[in-house]
Order: sequence, then C-alpha cells, then structure tokens
Amino acid sequence: MPVFAREEYLGRLERVKARMRERGLDILICADPASMNYLTGYDGWSFYVHQYVVVGLDREEPLWVGRAMDAPGARLTSFLAAESIRAYPETHVDSPTLHPAQFLAGVIADLGWDRATIGVDLDAFYFTARAYLELGKALPAARLVDTELLVAWVRLVKSEAEVALMRGAAAIVSHAMKVGMETVASGVRECDAVAEITAAQFRGTAGFWGDYPAALANVPHGEKTAAPHLTWTGERYRQGEVAYLELGGCHARYHAALARTLYMGTPPAQLLDVVKVVAEGMDVALDAARAGTTAHEVASAWNRVIARAGYEKPSRIGYSIGLNYPPDWGERTLSLREGERAVLEENMCFHMILGMWMDDWGYELSETFRITASGAPEVLTNFPRELVIKP
Amino acid sequence: MPVFAREEYLGRLERVKARMRERGLDILICADPASMNYLTGYDGWSFYVHQYVVVGLDREEPLWVGRAMDAPGARLTSFLAAESIRAYPETHVDSPTLHPAQFLAGVIADLGWDRATIGVDLDAFYFTARAYLELGKALPAARLVDTELLVAWVRLVKSEAEVALMRGAAAIVSHAMKVGMETVASGVRECDAVAEITAAQFRGTAGFWGDYPAALANVPHGEKTAAPHLTWTGERYRQGEVAYLELGGCHARYHAALARTLYMGTPPAQLLDVVKVVAEGMDVALDAARAGTTAHEVASAWNRVIARAGYEKPSRIGYSIGLNYPPDWGERTLSLREGERAVLEENMCFHMILGMWMDDWGYELSETFRITASGAPEVLTNFPRELVIKP
Repeated sequence: MPVFAREEYLGRLERVKARMRERGLDILICADPASMNYLTGYDGWSFYVHQYVVVGLDREEPLWVGRAMDAPGARLTSFLAAESIRAYPETHVDSPTLHPAQFLAGVIADLGWDRATIGVDLDAFYFTARAYLELGKALPAARLVDTELLVAWVRLVKSEAEVALMRGAAAIVSHAMKVGMETVASGVRECDAVAEITAAQFRGTAGFWGDYPAALANVPHGEKTAAPHLTWTGERYRQGEVAYLELGGCHARYHAALARTLYMGTPPAQLLDVVKVVAEGMDVALDAARAGTTAHEVASAWNRVIARAGYEKPSRIGYSIGLNYPPDWGERTLSLREGERAVLEENMCFHMILGMWMDDWGYELSETFRITASGAPEVLTNFPRELVIKP
Repeated sequence: MPVFAREEYLGRLERVKARMRERGLDILICADPASMNYLTGYDGWSFYVHQYVVVGLDREEPLWVGRAMDAPGARLTSFLAAESIRAYPETHVDSPTLHPAQFLAGVIADLGWDRATIGVDLDAFYFTARAYLELGKALPAARLVDTELLVAWVRLVKSEAEVALMRGAAAIVSHAMKVGMETVASGVRECDAVAEITAAQFRGTAGFWGDYPAALANVPHGEKTAAPHLTWTGERYRQGEVAYLELGGCHARYHAALARTLYMGTPPAQLLDVVKVVAEGMDVALDAARAGTTAHEVASAWNRVIARAGYEKPSRIGYSIGLNYPPDWGERTLSLREGERAVLEENMCFHMILGMWMDDWGYELSETFRITASGAPEVLTNFPRELVIKP
C-alpha cells in the first residue's frame, strides 16, 4: 500500500545516509510528517501527537516511532517490516509527565545508539522544544546536532515517479481554479465558493483522485486581499471589488499550487497596471528559471521588471514545493529571492507566487513549474494568466 | 472584525495574568495559533511561519509578533492597537541564519523584559526547539520556564459567547453527518464522499457559516477502519464492509466533532455486539459527566460497562474541545481517562470518542457535549446513535 516501490524509498534513504556521513551523524530523527512519509511511505492524520522516523547508518530500514493506535496505520501505509514499527502507549499522550520523546530515547538506547551523534530537526514544526529537552535528558552521552533540514534538502530534487504525481496535482488544481472562477461572483458567500472549490480539489480528475492540500483554499475579497493569509467567512463577494483564489491541488500528498485574481465590475486603472507588470515579470522570471542558474538570478530578473515600472515586492517570489502536510505545501528549503545562491537543478519544482499586497487591496498570479534539463521550465499548472473580469 | 467584544478578550487576559502571577511569570509567550487567537482574535493561515503572542503583566494588551506580510491580517482580525503589532522582515522567513525568535527577543529586550521570568509553551507544536534555543541565546539574563499549557488550561472553561459558537459548530457537523451517511455507499469513491461532506462542512447552516475544521473528514472503510487516522484515497466503498465517518464542524474556529459508523450489507454479529455495548457505554459515561466529578470517574463508568461485556479500550475516551487550528481540534489539556483527577466544571466541552479498533476493522461512536451547572451534560451534536445499515 505505500505509494512508491520499495526501491524508491531505499534510494531516498541512500541519499540521506550519504549526507549523514558527510555531517558525521550516526542516526537522524525526523519529526516532520512530510520527511517521515518521504522515507517510509507512512501517511496518516496523526501528526497532532508526537511521532518520529529514525534513520541509522547501520540499518537498511528506518524505524517508525509513534502512538500505539497509529501503529496499524504504519503497517498499512509504510514499506517497513513490523519489526521497524515501535509504538508508545496511550499513557504518553497529552500527559504532563510522560513524553513520547522519553519512549523514543528508550528505543534509541536499546539499539545501542545512546552515545551516538544524533541529527535532529531543530526547526521542524512538530519537533517541540520539550521533545528536544527530554531527548537530551534521557540520552546524556549522545550528541544532538541540528540536521538543518537535511531530509527536506534531499526532497528538493524530485524523481520521475514524483514528477508524475505532481503533474496529477497540477491537473487537479487547474480544474479547481476553473470551478472557482465560475463560482465566485458578487452576492455569493465566500464559504459557499470555497465549498465548491474544495469539492473539486477532493474529487480530483479522472486519472488522479484528490488528496487534501496542506493549506486550504484562500479566497479573500475586498480589503482582505491586502493580507495574504486571511481565511474565508460567511461574507458575500461584492461588485466593485477584487478577489483572488490561491489554491492547492494534491494527489497522494504531492502538491501543485495556483493563484489567479478576478474583478467584479470594471477594473480600476491601478489594478490593470499591476496586472500588466506582473504578467511581464512572470514571463521573464519563468524564462530565467533554468538548470544552472541561481535562485537569486530568477528573483533579480523579476525585480528588474517591476522596478522599471515603479513597483517593489519585499517578499520572496517563490519556494520549492512537493510532498507535504498541513500547515504548508512549501518545503522550507529553497526560496526564490535575492541573495539565495543555491543553483537550480533538473526536477526541482517551485511555486512562483507573485503576490502584490497593497494598502487596501492585493493581486496574485502564480504557477507551479519544474526545472528541466535544459531550456525553459515545464509549467505544470494550466490556466489563462489574464485577470478574470466579471462585469 | 474580531469575533468577540474587547471585554471578552480582556477577561481572558485577566484570567491568564492571574495564573502568571501564581507561577511567578513576568511575561508569557504563546506560539500555539489557538491560544494566539484566544488572547487577541488573530485569525489567519499563517501558522506555517513562526509567530507569537506575548502577554506582559505590566501591559493591558498583548503583543502580536509575526511576519511583515501578515501584519495587515493582524490589524484586520485582532482587537489590538497598531502599536501592539510587531512584524519581522521577510529576511527571517525560511533562513538558515536569521530566525523570527531573534526578532522576538529584540522586541522583548526593547520592552525591558530581558531579565524577566518568561513563560514559554515548551510542548506546543509551532514552538520549535530552535525557537527555544535562539530565545535563550539572545536573552541570557532571562529565565525561560515551561508554561505547561497555561493558556490552554484557561481555554478549557468556555464563556457563554463561546458556547453559542460551539452550538453552531455542532449544528454544522450534525448536518454534515447526514450528508455523509446519504453519500457513502458501495461503489462510491472515498474522495467523492469526502467532497460532498466537506462542501457541507464549509457551507454550514443558515445561521452559521462553515469554517475549516482543524482536522478534515475521516472516512475509512474496510481494514483501514482498524487504524484511526488514515485519510481518504480514490478507493471505492464495497459491499460487506464497515465504514465510519469522524467529522468536525467549525464556526469561527470553534469546533464540535461527531463520529458514526455504517455497514454496507448485513452486519456481522460481532459488530452488532460492539454496537450494543458501546451504546450502553455512551449512555453511562455521558450520564457520569457532571460538574464536580472527575475525568477519571467518567472513564471508569465506561470501562465497567465494556469490561462486563468482555471488551477493553486502552486509549482515552475523550478530550476537551473548542477553539482550534490544524492539526487538532482537541485542546491537549483534559483527557477523559482513568487516572485523570481533574474535576469537571460547568462549560467545559468534550468530544467523547468511543473508538473500538480491532485487528482488521473498527467502530466509532462519538458526541460533543457541554458540562452543565447540575445534572447531565448538554449534548451539542445531534444525530441518531444507531449503526447506519445500507443493505
């Protein structure tokens, strides 16, 4: 039942272990659900309790360490043998005294790793400060070292099998955008629009069933478009307002994201000017996104276009995207922004999100694309880039 | 635009400050989005970057400290004055060197709290080990102390205004369950069922628009019902299988949850026996859930019923529920289980989830209820408790 063949997981583990050797790590602990899935196939909405995957240089398979009631889910969804699945008892759930990291330390000690150099995900959401402190207390002879997103950096370059799932996710989100643009109209409640959009995201397409995106639909209108992350309410869309849709499509936890903007009425000249400049910036930045160039160069190409037109955008214009879980479809590794010197490689995938948030309105245009071996990127998402106008 | 009146937030802050005084805390840092919302009204899908709310004994209003692009959202959704909203620059997002907790430490030092006793949420998801270490490094003269879910414990007892929203959430989830039970049938894909259910959750009812629940619909069938947290795929429901629906309803971030089970075909005797025992256990446990009794006593009442019938359930039978964000609608404070000596009080709300996960199938029945001043609880959710049979 894992999504990929055993060989795909073992290849990922080899790449992770090579980096562990470079960094002098004996074992590595992941608490990020996306990295846990990447290394084992494990997939469940159980990341609201503590759970971990442990990779040891001296073991072929990783260990899954989680809550007893989730062990059957690990058996059903991961490629791991039963021996690699270790479950802590219910007493360790939401307890002021017993912590899953104490149990994890016991598993580590039992395997003879209590004096090891242990990589931990210091800045992963889901790896709490307490988990870190409990591990240190229970394993005083071990050395805890920040992995600095080691597994997430390995995730950055996708395999062909992963790219196939991302193309499916892109087909889903492109269709959901069509549904959204047909549904949003003056007088409609935001929550009713998001109901239609989400149903389309979950149904998916004929070839790809829809999984839940790591972030739900973002469908603000009016002054709420000046802020990027305000979720919907029961308010109605109104004539004379801008609205944007920023949507994810997901298949088997792989994501593509897509943003488009619409105007209900006759768009003001100021908006049309931004639309024109951003469209040119998108063309130029996409064309710059080639294997061998840096993230910095892509952002600079964009910045030159908008600066010439008198605009500026203080935030990054994109980030790597792929396998993920709530709260974020981004991978937290490579951002498309000035100063970021990492070199783009074939099969890295990005969400380029050109969000222009003004004082009391905003405009968004985005695409999800794959860096190709040579030449311009493969744009995975597919929806006309024009401002949608509902007169 | 905050959901509640300013007085409601100030009352909450007074209760939090009283506990801070008892614990000797000068200031308190929250990184849990639900606690941040509880204390300020702030509501946005921005919890995929670091963000904090800071409560100081010597300040009436808390501070919101978050990403620059989210500051407009804080102005639009919180009750805070502009002066209380502090934004870190984009350079601190997903950076290997710059961390939002460094910026937070600067805000704290500027306000003269650099030698303070500072409460931090050591085990909050969204408060990472790195955030903790960066704070300690930047504020060497301060003392960092675990709050042990201080704000979440204050959230446990709801105000009348909060209960009104939870009643709305319960109406939403009761309706969504009806839609789900009508939709799920042999031959239907899980993803298509979840599309209908989620659309109902988001539309809400005539009186209450639907917000996104902190966990999405759980709709497994067949052997997947033996594991509690496996999410849907494109697989089809099949005749001769059990399926359960565990759903949340949400209005303005307040939740009610509800689980029911259905069988496609003629239910086996083993399942019908579990249905009967669980129904009796639900009656007995609900009746025991009264102000003045302990969580332990409620769980014991349940355990006596099922033990008599030869069953056991190693996991807790419920937990407090209310205001929340992904990944969990539970509050992580009070669990209904043996050994938990906390006393139930009026206006605590719980999700009692009687999940019986067997070797290759499972059964779920749940209700969301409110502890009343005297007598039996007010069950907020409303759906027949029988096993739904689709012959």
